[in-house]
Amino acid sequence: MPLTELPIEKAFMLIEPGPVLLVTTQNHGRNNIMTISWHMALDFSARVALATGPWNYSFNALMSTRECVLNVPAVDLAEKTVRIGDCSGADVDKFKEFGLTPLPGKAVRAPLIAECLACLECRVADYLEPQGIFILQGERAWVNPDRKERRTFHANGDGTFAVNGETLNLRSLMADKIPSGV
Amino acid sequence: MPLTELPIEKAFMLIEPGPVLLVTTQNHGRNNIMTISWHMALDFSARVALATGPWNYSFNALMSTRECVLNVPAVDLAEKTVRIGDCSGADVDKFKEFGLTPLPGKAVRAPLIAECLACLECRVADYLEPQGIFILQGERAWVNPDRKERRTFHANGDGTFAVNGETLNLRSLMADKIPSGV
Repeated sequence: MPLTELPIEKAFMLIEPGPVLLVTTQNHGRNNIMTISWHMALDFSARVALATGPWNYSFNALMSTRECVLNVPAVDLAEKTVRIGDCSGADVDKFKEFGLTPLPGKAVRAPLIAECLACLECRVADYLEPQGIFILQGERAWVNPDRKERRTFHANGDGTFAVNGETLNLRSLMADKIPSGV
Repeated sequence: MPLTELPIEKAFMLIEPGPVLLVTTQNHGRNNIMTISWHMALDFSARVALATGPWNYSFNALMSTRECVLNVPAVDLAEKTVRIGDCSGADVDKFKEFGLTPLPGKAVRAPLIAECLACLECRVADYLEPQGIFILQGERAWVNPDRKERRTFHANGDGTFAVNGETLNLRSLMADKIPSGV
C-alpha cells in the first residue's frame, strides 16, 4: 500500500472536519492505538490540540516519547475503531488484535496505520496539565490515494456516528479565507 | 420557535461530532456572530475548547464579556454560515444582514440564534494566550425539536463541506464508555 506525501500546509484539512481519529504511539518498542474524537486544528501549520489525560493508557507514551501519529480511519473501519477505543493497550496488542498493519514514519517512531485514509506524524509540543490538552505539531502527512472507501465518520457521543454524505462546494464564497496552496 | 432545554450532561454531543458552529457574542449591547470549525469537547460537563485569537473581531467581545453562545447550524444555513465567516462584525450587523433572529438566553447575554438546531450558552473560563485557546464552560443548552432539516456539516478547510449522511449505531460495542443519561 503506497502512501503519498501530503504537503504539510494541507494537513490541517485532516483534522478540521472533526472525524474520529486513531492515535498511535510507540513506547519501549511497543505500539499502541487509541480512539479519539476530542481534537481540533489550532492553525494552518498543522498544529493540533487533543484532549486527554492520565486515565488513558496512551497518556504515558505521549508524555514520555513526545510523539504520536494521528490516523484517519474511513467508515469501513468504524467497528474496529470503536472496539479499539473500548479496550486498553495495557491488556491488548491492538495492531495484532485488530489485524492492522504498522508502517514506519519519517519523523517519529510511532507507527502509521496502513489501513487508514491518512496519517499525520506529530511531535508533542506541550501538555497543558490543568486543562488536559496536548499541543501537537504535525511534521509529515501521508494519504492513501488508492483506498476506495473514503468517507470518514464523526462521533455523536452516544455510540452513534455520522458518516459523511454529500459534499458542498462553497469555495467561491470564501476564497479570501483559504490559505494559499489549499 | 419554541426551544427545548437539553440536559447539560448531553451538551458535549453538540460539539463532539465537530460541526461548523456559529459563535454569538454581545458587547456594548451589540450582537455579533462568527463562524468557527476549530473547537473540541474537553469533558462530559460541557467544557469546550475553541481556537481563535485577536485577529477575530469577536475576540474582544469574548475577552471582555466572558460569555458566548455556540449555535449549531443545519445544512440549509451552510451558505449563510460561510458568508458570516467572510465578513466582520466591525462592518456589518450580521443578524440583520443575514436575516437571523436573536433570542435571549438564560445564563448569558449573548443571543441564541433562533434558526439553528441547537445552542449552548457558555461562560469563558480561561484564555490560554500562547496557544490561542479559549476554555468555555457550557451552562444551559437548547435544541429546536421542530426543525425539519437536521443534518449538520463539517468544514474540510478548502471551502468544501461534508454534510452528514447515514448514521451508524455502534452503541452496543461501547456501552461502558457512554456516560449515564446519554
